[in-house]
Amino acid sequence: MKLGIVGLGRMGGNMAERLRRDGHEVVGYSRSSGDVASLEELASVLEPPRVVWTMLPAGDPTAATFDQLMLLLEPGDTLVDGGNSNYHESIVRSKAARQKGVGFIDAGVSGGIWGLEEGYCLMVGGEEADVERLQPIFDSLAPPGGFVHCGPSGAGHFTKMVHNGVEYGMMQAFGEGYELLAASELGIDIPAALSAWRYGSVVRSWLLDLLVRALEQDPQLSEVKGWAEDSGEGRWTVNEAVRLAVPAPVISAALYARFASRKPDSPAMKVVASLRKEFGGHATKG
Amino acid sequence: MKLGIVGLGRMGGNMAERLRRDGHEVVGYSRSSGDVASLEELASVLEPPRVVWTMLPAGDPTAATFDQLMLLLEPGDTLVDGGNSNYHESIVRSKAARQKGVGFIDAGVSGGIWGLEEGYCLMVGGEEADVERLQPIFDSLAPPGGFVHCGPSGAGHFTKMVHNGVEYGMMQAFGEGYELLAASELGIDIPAALSAWRYGSVVRSWLLDLLVRALEQDPQLSEVKGWAEDSGEGRWTVNEAVRLAVPAPVISAALYARFASRKPDSPAMKVVASLRKEFGGHATKG
Repeated sequence: MKLGIVGLGRMGGNMAERLRRDGHEVVGYSRSSGDVASLEELASVLEPPRVVWTMLPAGDPTAATFDQLMLLLEPGDTLVDGGNSNYHESIVRSKAARQKGVGFIDAGVSGGIWGLEEGYCLMVGGEEADVERLQPIFDSLAPPGGFVHCGPSGAGHFTKMVHNGVEYGMMQAFGEGYELLAASELGIDIPAALSAWRYGSVVRSWLLDLLVRALEQDPQLSEVKGWAEDSGEGRWTVNEAVRLAVPAPVISAALYARFASRKPDSPAMKVVASLRKEFGGHATKG
Repeated sequence: MKLGIVGLGRMGGNMAERLRRDGHEVVGYSRSSGDVASLEELASVLEPPRVVWTMLPAGDPTAATFDQLMLLLEPGDTLVDGGNSNYHESIVRSKAARQKGVGFIDAGVSGGIWGLEEGYCLMVGGEEADVERLQPIFDSLAPPGGFVHCGPSGAGHFTKMVHNGVEYGMMQAFGEGYELLAASELGIDIPAALSAWRYGSVVRSWLLDLLVRALEQDPQLSEVKGWAEDSGEGRWTVNEAVRLAVPAPVISAALYARFASRKPDSPAMKVVASLRKEFGGHATKG
């Protein structure tokens, strides 16, 4: 199929490449590079009914591009948001698009920089007819079995959000396990132990494969600071847990652990240290 | 090799079978069945230097059998504890065995009921010479890459303990993700979504494969009560985290979630409900 991809970063660029390898005609656009110089030109070189896939950071970049595209696309066209957008916003956008006769699909995309070769897990939400029309694109991006139309508009990004929340919990579990092994007095061969876990054990997983890979390059992770960013989906997962009154202690703890990792001098711990001094005369660090 | 296996339950029985398939001569013993009627007979039919592998529940059964075997084994023999023993106890046992000239290996074994076909991940601790001597047994039990001699006595069971702690965190992360998907108003096709996660996504893992399998048989898990037992290794992991001052919020939360799942009427929540009533007149349930 012919389609436009807006946003040619680590994800969008590789997805365009994977689609081209599979015979699709991709017209790429980004602010800094691409086959066309503007969204207007992109719309003009695509034949109606057009397919445009945005692969942009969630929030303002996605919102601004959506608004621009709504002025350029026509009834019968289909817009896919493959970014990590908040699913509430995707539901609003799907309604706005549909009012213009434009189909809208919210697509959660997982696979990172490995997706080019291994394929991307695709979780999409939207109307059946729109999804069916784009199936050749989904089939090229996803590995066999890795595509799911999981519900109506919003369901794709909701499912991706939860996926990332689960990812936070799994990563933190491995992190805590690593720290425990490293803290032991027994001198455990951690790279060898984690490597063995990949074969036959209950915790074997792709994240474990990646951890073993990282340890092969840097056995004590000495080149990496214990500082972890979060890109929003973990927060949304916890927000949704609160909204839906779903207990999510592990995902919440994993998110808070990332927050704590970014506080070299924690205000909360200043309070705890101060109070220990006040009631017990315990020493504080100046 | 010729070896004795004590304990022929789900794990020991399958391990004996896997070893026999690979050409080893296994003499099995358990209280209810086996090739021999007693540990004395087991010791008499094995030729020195003997190899005995115990595969028993941790705690009293392992302790009692260890004590009995110490009276039967001779210098040069080797004893392997493949159960989920506390690693502190394994260190004590290794010293006691060595004082008698008997080699001792603590072996963490992961793989569950799938190990018969897929092989067991083996994490062993002990002296190099003892481990080397038993290598043909380890090679038959583990899949390629799934064996590790991770350190001195205790290191095998410590590593297995941490492995199980990580497993608690991962399982709870999937549990919370599932509950969030189920709580959404969007009517997400959960079995299809989780199945797609297996291909190309960051959370692909054997535990996810097993969850998809469970959902294939019971799409709403309606046959399973939300009640989860714990068999001790999660508690030890948290105990070690406390002893070593390692923050383990996710593993701890996963363990506590299991405890909470077994409280149909939580005393702590009685307190919370009572206090809400006391200060705010909020209704309680009788």
